[in-house]
Amino acid sequence: MARIEDIANKLNISKGTVSKALNGAPDVSETLRKAVLETAVDLGYSRSLHKKGAKQLCLFIENMAYAEPADFGHDIIAGFRRAAEPAGFVVQIVDLSEAIQKATRYDEYMLQNNFVGAFFLGLTLSDTWLHQLQTSRTPAVLLDNHVPANPTSCYVGVDNNEGMDLAVAYLKQLGHRKIGYLSGGLGSYVNQQRYLAFFHALRKNGLPDDHHLAGSDYYFSECLQKHLPALLRQNVTAILCSHDLLAHTVMLHCLELGLRIPQDLSIIGFDDLPLCDYTAPPLTTIRQDRTQLGKSGFYALSSLLNSVPISTLLLHAQLVLRQSCGQASPQNPSIRKM
Amino acid sequence: MARIEDIANKLNISKGTVSKALNGAPDVSETLRKAVLETAVDLGYSRSLHKKGAKQLCLFIENMAYAEPADFGHDIIAGFRRAAEPAGFVVQIVDLSEAIQKATRYDEYMLQNNFVGAFFLGLTLSDTWLHQLQTSRTPAVLLDNHVPANPTSCYVGVDNNEGMDLAVAYLKQLGHRKIGYLSGGLGSYVNQQRYLAFFHALRKNGLPDDHHLAGSDYYFSECLQKHLPALLRQNVTAILCSHDLLAHTVMLHCLELGLRIPQDLSIIGFDDLPLCDYTAPPLTTIRQDRTQLGKSGFYALSSLLNSVPISTLLLHAQLVLRQSCGQASPQNPSIRKM
Repeated sequence: MARIEDIANKLNISKGTVSKALNGAPDVSETLRKAVLETAVDLGYSRSLHKKGAKQLCLFIENMAYAEPADFGHDIIAGFRRAAEPAGFVVQIVDLSEAIQKATRYDEYMLQNNFVGAFFLGLTLSDTWLHQLQTSRTPAVLLDNHVPANPTSCYVGVDNNEGMDLAVAYLKQLGHRKIGYLSGGLGSYVNQQRYLAFFHALRKNGLPDDHHLAGSDYYFSECLQKHLPALLRQNVTAILCSHDLLAHTVMLHCLELGLRIPQDLSIIGFDDLPLCDYTAPPLTTIRQDRTQLGKSGFYALSSLLNSVPISTLLLHAQLVLRQSCGQASPQNPSIRKM
Repeated sequence: MARIEDIANKLNISKGTVSKALNGAPDVSETLRKAVLETAVDLGYSRSLHKKGAKQLCLFIENMAYAEPADFGHDIIAGFRRAAEPAGFVVQIVDLSEAIQKATRYDEYMLQNNFVGAFFLGLTLSDTWLHQLQTSRTPAVLLDNHVPANPTSCYVGVDNNEGMDLAVAYLKQLGHRKIGYLSGGLGSYVNQQRYLAFFHALRKNGLPDDHHLAGSDYYFSECLQKHLPALLRQNVTAILCSHDLLAHTVMLHCLELGLRIPQDLSIIGFDDLPLCDYTAPPLTTIRQDRTQLGKSGFYALSSLLNSVPISTLLLHAQLVLRQSCGQASPQNPSIRKM
């Protein structure tokens, strides 16, 4: 790992100037400061945990308000802080825009702002920084995104295989044999994982795993107007959804179609958002504990900061039974004619 | 969670007697002590971390000397202790025999011996306790074994998908298009995972994934006499092995057959045991860092002890290049006639 001296030699300036530039001293020009930061990143310099005042963590949030109800993010953030702060870290929350990502490289941003590690919420597969994280050197933990082969990046999430398996086994126990799956867009890592986990669970439980049993789209409307009717035509008696908001929308749409839930169709969501208690009927779902996800995010980051190259940290999933599932029953044939 | 009072009420004895029995006081009969322990386990009582003198961890080792060179286990143990002891835990090492498992239930053993959590090395799918761990209540971390749906059990291992992907991508880059796989018996969880990971990596790299490209057996002799010739007859130009000892044996056998490594055949192992430096040629392999595995074992256990229900913790894999791989080349046809 590069030292301050290496940066100084490379730029042919004094160590003191490098140090000042790294610490944002006002008597270093912006041009020189930028040159120092870029050289520091190129040489692989990173602030040591042992340096005074260097224990700042950054919690990046992207599209959180848009993608999920606010409290989803809130619980994760609270869990992360609850684990990080007693361990002596300061947590800063940064709204991660595409503009920030385009303006500055990830490693450079972290160095510039004196952050020793990051926890990312809501990063998508198309984000600029996600690609940089494959070769970055500043510890980064990503919720629901996997960066392979970089010893300083780690994926934290729920055990989707376990969750899908619990849900499918439960439905099988209720007599369901033909189970459908509706998913958000497969441009997100977590949706890809849950999609694969669904079929894995079908096979594990000895149920048919025809790929026509699943439909996915970024837009709810497409799921409702195209994939849901296709599943109903195949006489599925239960539908699993990749997340609760989709499950809730599907449930509302089914009620409009005259289907009774759970008498005619069982529905299961994923995430256990607070809304699950308030839907009609209350939604059975696969729980990911948000506070614990946040804590796990810190544990993973803490491991990376201690040079333990964790790749993946998954939380146990839990099936939360409410009222949206019932015994499989032959369904109303008139509905099937759609 | 049950309290001492609940055990006392259930057995109709005093709290003091329960406490004495749990702490192995000499004035409590063995019969009563056993009844107290069994009731404690049935009611879900477990010693709190906050109790004085209750911070003992148990590191169970089974078949370690037999299954792997001694230093494999040694590094893991050292890593575990290096993380656990500074955190204030005492680590006891217990040789886990089938006799112990048959004599006592896991939860009962832990309570009886005042252990708050366990790290298991070398447990096999047929072990009595592995089944109990599905419903046990004392935190348990298992190296290379996954116990689904129990919030107090966690799987720690290397990221086999990442490892296989690194190896296959590297071989592809060297021009290999037909890659074979030899595996130890599929009665072990880690062998199952690596087997699946191998085919996953072939697909990911756009290479043929015919299941005839893999052979597995508990016994090396079967791999050498049956599966290796079958792979060579299919004109594979490279062979991946599920672990280094098997790769080493395969390498020796190929040399006896007159095959030059890596000119005629490339070979990659898994684990990066110390022997890889000493084989002829030195073995290219997928590394799992044993010290870090041990540390991760403690981090996972520590999370479970803090009621963070981690299911899986994987370490990054790393491809270690030595001399057992080369450019793919058309092979000696006389060898192919075996």
